Formats: sequence, structure tokens, C-alpha cells
Amino acid sequence: MSLIVQKFGGSSVANAERVFNVADIVTKTYAKGNDVIVVVSAQGDTTDDLIAKAHEINPNASRREMDMLLTTGEQISASLMAMAIEKLGYPVVSLLGWQAGFHTSTAYGSARIKRITPDRIKKELDKKNIIVVTGFQGINHYDDMTTLGRGGSDTSAVAIAAAMNADLCQIYTDVEGVFTADPRKIKNAKKLDVISYDEMLELASLGAQVLNNRSVEMAKRYGIELEVLSSMTKKPGTIVKEATKVEKMLISGVAKDEDVARVSIIGVPDRPGLAFKIFSKIGAKNINIDIILQSVGRNGTKDITFTVHRADLKETIAILDPYVELIGATSVVYDEDVAKVSIVGAGMETHSGTAASMFEALYAADINIHMISTSEIKISVLIDRADTDKAVAAIHNRFFGEGRDND
Amino acid sequence: MSLIVQKFGGSSVANAERVFNVADIVTKTYAKGNDVIVVVSAQGDTTDDLIAKAHEINPNASRREMDMLLTTGEQISASLMAMAIEKLGYPVVSLLGWQAGFHTSTAYGSARIKRITPDRIKKELDKKNIIVVTGFQGINHYDDMTTLGRGGSDTSAVAIAAAMNADLCQIYTDVEGVFTADPRKIKNAKKLDVISYDEMLELASLGAQVLNNRSVEMAKRYGIELEVLSSMTKKPGTIVKEATKVEKMLISGVAKDEDVARVSIIGVPDRPGLAFKIFSKIGAKNINIDIILQSVGRNGTKDITFTVHRADLKETIAILDPYVELIGATSVVYDEDVAKVSIVGAGMETHSGTAASMFEALYAADINIHMISTSEIKISVLIDRADTDKAVAAIHNRFFGEGRDND
Repeated sequence: MSLIVQKFGGSSVANAERVFNVADIVTKTYAKGNDVIVVVSAQGDTTDDLIAKAHEINPNASRREMDMLLTTGEQISASLMAMAIEKLGYPVVSLLGWQAGFHTSTAYGSARIKRITPDRIKKELDKKNIIVVTGFQGINHYDDMTTLGRGGSDTSAVAIAAAMNADLCQIYTDVEGVFTADPRKIKNAKKLDVISYDEMLELASLGAQVLNNRSVEMAKRYGIELEVLSSMTKKPGTIVKEATKVEKMLISGVAKDEDVARVSIIGVPDRPGLAFKIFSKIGAKNINIDIILQSVGRNGTKDITFTVHRADLKETIAILDPYVELIGATSVVYDEDVAKVSIVGAGMETHSGTAASMFEALYAADINIHMISTSEIKISVLIDRADTDKAVAAIHNRFFGEGRDND
Repeated sequence: MSLIVQKFGGSSVANAERVFNVADIVTKTYAKGNDVIVVVSAQGDTTDDLIAKAHEINPNASRREMDMLLTTGEQISASLMAMAIEKLGYPVVSLLGWQAGFHTSTAYGSARIKRITPDRIKKELDKKNIIVVTGFQGINHYDDMTTLGRGGSDTSAVAIAAAMNADLCQIYTDVEGVFTADPRKIKNAKKLDVISYDEMLELASLGAQVLNNRSVEMAKRYGIELEVLSSMTKKPGTIVKEATKVEKMLISGVAKDEDVARVSIIGVPDRPGLAFKIFSKIGAKNINIDIILQSVGRNGTKDITFTVHRADLKETIAILDPYVELIGATSVVYDEDVAKVSIVGAGMETHSGTAASMFEALYAADINIHMISTSEIKISVLIDRADTDKAVAAIHNRFFGEGRDND
């Protein structure tokens, strides 16, 4: 007998039929003798509908009242799920975030889970109840409702799995698992049976929107084995676990991120500490800087180039513009029409030549590389955004196609 | 400075425009220097929509899960109301039943308020916040959501008014107050400025659906002054308070109840205790018996006639049918085509001739009286249902028309 946490996203519970589809998965897991904790998101478009309702009344509503409103979405979803499980004849109880013991920070709209006190959950498991918990929410030390922000339900599921020392945490979604590339774009993309936490983290942060990063980080920290799988096809998905337990492939996948922009500060005087000052100015505004390149310019000056999220570009320029003159640089230029394409794989640590294979594939496809960044398990290149899909296809084909380099 | 509780029903908060109409009433009350606690119901048809959603999944869902679902209706309503008040620039906080300290019995779907611990409410009032509380709900000793059953939001409002020793509890509804008869039916029906708790209780139980009985009983017990008024017209409504403070009118109003049925047990042997046994059988099923008439039948037997809610008729007959033979009675007959018309007034205690005036009015209108029941402040008659409106008009005209008997 195992304790299994199963998380279902909004599309998996969008209507009565899908609620029963999930109830079927849950009760079959329970009928095999497992303890089951189910974490649900709000149904389909419920959250968006609630936000629209709020904006009709007050587009600048406080985050506290927004959370008071939005937490109803998961409450509706959880109670309906419990009713479906009752209908199938199984013992069940639905619990709100605070009833399940989710204590969070006070940051309404983007709260972090501080601790879980699972007394009630333990009591209900002792009664052999299936437990349905509202994802995405908790309670802060004012006893007020909070929501966890983006991907919150994944985090809820992993957190409760960690608090209860669960044997497995299954994240049901609308894809069958983690693929070597986006299967909607790349025809011969392959589903991975297994991937390490670190690879998953790189893939998630590189724009392969399968699992929320916070949830993978938490799973890694507490050693919770994750499975990403589809609630529709009911096939085994992709297991995410410790690298030592993963048979290393050279690379696990190709990811793209079209949501980037490149910024260059031209003619920065060659004084120690200037780059640090520039980046700390930007970091102070919570803007993440990614690939950084520093090149020698004219007259003993340097050009500093880096990438940011496209959404942060305007603010980045606003920070730099007055500062540029102050430090005696020449100008700031930027380019929004770029994208980042990356390969991720724990195997590349021990294989040389991976980067060369990647660059060769791009060269053969006539794609120009603007910037390069590497880590132990990742190689990223910045290219023109128009070339993105072509680049992913070329690289994927090189590593996963016929006569592939991957093994 | 006073503490005022204001309760708004579902139709008063049905859409964004009406939410702002209510926010306007609330903030004007606050701007006059009052502390304000607002109690809201779910918007418009929300509760019915949620029930439909539940029935689609499981028509026999547990009451616990139904309450988990239904409490979201008031939560949505309360948070939107708070957002509207924020928009108008006033300090506000919304609180769920449990946050406001509503502790109830465990009877999901029809819980009773056991106690209110208003610590949080006091804290928010100290901060000069307007407080919006979800009506109709609380928490039981399992820490589970409960709903209060019919008219629950009125009861929530009076209970919080009692717990906080409020100066006034205003029940906003879609009528302008308590009338001498149903103003949609009787043209010259008059709005009462004031009425006693007891008269209000009789009127409520007699089918004048303005205030929920439990809320009036609670207001009477704790001496909370109520005002029934319209959220649309913004005119003064009807004050409900202690009889000693009410200038007595002979009668306060005419009410009808078309939701009754008459049952007769024919030929009951004249043995002591038989009537008690019959009524205790029925009472055990939580069926309320109203007017009772006992008449002498043939051969030393009696006929016992009484009225029940029409909805309870079928069950009443099912209880009596096997029992009739057992006690040696002849048969059970019933009549669904009846109605009860009543006059209520604290003044009739000290005026003789009120009943005579009422019967005379019915006689003049050619209406036959089947049964009569009286209390100190009420006279009810059972008549054919087809005569109901004619009877109400005739009686109302007698007491409130030109050359009226009422004074």
C-alpha cells in the first residue's frame, strides 16, 4: 500500500464528464489499496471568469479581495469532485487549503507555502477517506485566504506529497509527459520515460511549459518522485526523479523560449565593478538577466550584451537610459526579434562534442547564432526569432532523428 | 456614532450595477460616522446554478459537500462587494462566516448558529474598516463549512447584530417594508411604519414572506431593532421592535397562506389520549399541525380535523392510513383546495368585536368559513382556496379602506 498524490489541472476537470473521468482514475488508484490525496485546480475558465467579474467592478481591486474571490474556483471544483467520487460509491471528503493545513506567506496573489500541518489530512486518511484538496491556495497568519500564484496547484501537490512523505506525486495534465521537443511542432518528438530533476528544471525554465519550476525544485529538495501524465489517455507518463537513478541520455530535449529580448550597452568604460553596478540596478527591480556577453569595443571600452524576458524590456531600458550617461557609456540598443533555443541533458557533462553537433546542425540549416550560453547540462543559443522553429527541428533531428547522435 | 448591521439579499446584489447601488448605501451610512457591518447573500441565481451543477454530477451528493459548494456563492458576493467599496475609496475587508466567528451545529444544509466569537470583527472595526460578512454560513466543530438553511442570511445579520449589540439591523429586500396586505394584490395596502416582533412573527408564519421567522425570534430575544426596507427606493422602511414601544393599531395586516391542506379523521372512538397519540405520530415526522377542530360525530365518536402544509399532505396521509384502522376510526379524508386568511394585530387583545368585523366582511363577500383559529394577536380562518384573494380584499377593505374599523 502506497500513499499517492494526484494533481489534476483545470482542463482535466472542465466539465461533468471530465470530472467523472478523473473520479474514475482516482477511485481505481484507491481500489488498488492505495491512500489517495487528490489536488484539483479550478474548472476550465473559472478563474478567468472570476477575474473578469472582478474587473467589471474594480480593475484595481486589492489583492486580498482578489484572493478571497479566486479561491472559490478550487472550492467549487473540489466539492464537485468529491460528489463524483461519492457517486461512484467511495468514501471521500473535500478540504480547503486551510483545512488541509497549508500555511502561506502574506503575499496575496503570489503567496509561498511556509509550512503544512497535515493533522486533518492524517485524520481523514485514518478513516480511509479519499481526500480532495483545493490546489493553488492556503491561509496566511491573519487567517486570510491566499493564492500561490502561477502553477500553484502543482506546488500544492508536491508540498502535500512532501509533508506526507508520499510515495509518488502524479501531475495529470493535457500532455502525455515530457517530450524531447514540443510534440505539436516536431513530428518525431519522443516522450521521455524518465528525466532528472535538474534536466526538468532547465527545460521548464527554457520554456517547455509542462511543470512549474517551483514544484520541481520542491520535489528535488524533498526527493519526491513525480510523474507527468495525461488524464485522457491513461498511459504511463514521464517520471521525474534524482539524476543518479536516471539512465543518462546525451540530451533529453530541445526547448525554445521566444519570450526574450536582447539588450546591449555600447561603449562602457573599462573600469572594474561597472558591470556589477549595472546588473545590480536591474536585479533590484526583480528583473532576471540571462545570457551575458562582454566584448571589447573601441578606445578601451567594452560592449555588454544580455537577455531579459521580453515583458521586462521596457523597464530595463528605463533603468539603463539615465544610467548610461552617468557611467560614461555611449548608448543602449535592444532587439526584440530574438529567441533562445536550448538543448538539455545530464549526459553532456561527460560527452564532448555535443555543442559542436548543435552548432553544426544550425550552420547546416543556415541559422545565425548571436550569443551562446552553457551550463553543465545545458547549451543555449540566441538566434533570430523567425528561425526558431527551423532551429528546433534541425537540432532535434540531429539528436533524435535517423542516424542520430544521441545515445 | 452607532453600529449598524445592513443585510442585502441576492436580488439586491445580482449584478455589478446593483452591487454599486448597495456599496453606495453602505458607504453613505459609514460616511455619517457609523460603524457598518454588511451581510450579503449570494448573487441572484448563483445558489440555484450551483445546485444545478451539483445535481448534474450527483443528485444525492452528501449535505457536507453541498455546503462546501454552496458557501462559495456568498464568498463571491462578499469579495465583489468589498471591491466595489474599495472602488468608492472606503476601507473595507470581507470575512467568511468562519472568519467572522459564526460557529454552528453540524447539521449541514440547515445548521443553527450556536455562538459567535466576534474577535476578528472587533479588530477590523477598531481599524475603522467597513466589514462585509458572508451570510447564510458558518463552521461546525469539525471545522467544516455549514449553511444555515432557508432565510439564513437574515439570521446571520440578526445574530451578528446581537453578538455586537448593534443599534440597528437593517434588512434590505425588494419590498419597501411590511404592508397591511400583499401590495401586489391589494391596491390600497399601506406600508407600516412600525410593527411589534410578535405581530411580525405571526405575519411571517402566516405566509407574508418578508422576514424569516428565526431571525425575528432572535431579534426579539436579544432586543435588536430591525428595519425592513428596499435597497432600490432608499425610503424609510418598517421598524420591527418591542410591543411596548409600538403604538398599537387594532390590526397590523392581513395575510394569506395558500399552501395548506385540511385533513379529517372521521369516526374516532371517544377514548382519552387518542388525539394525542395521533398528533404525536405526525409530530414525530416533523410535520407541523396548525388549526385543529374536534367535533362530535355519530354513535359517540368524534371527527378530528386539522391543517398541515400542503407539501406534507402525502406523508401525513401515509402515516394516518394504517393507523386509522388500528384505533377503530372510520376513514381519513382530505381537501387540498383550501387556504388560510388571517388578521394580525397587537391591538385586538383589548378590542372586542374584531373577530365579528372580520366574519361580517367575509359574510358580506359571500365567503364560507370552514375553520377558525384565534390567538391573542391573530384570527385565522380556513376558506376555499378560490376565495382567497376576494377574502383578503374584503377584510383589508373593512379594516383599512374608507370608513375603516381600524384605529
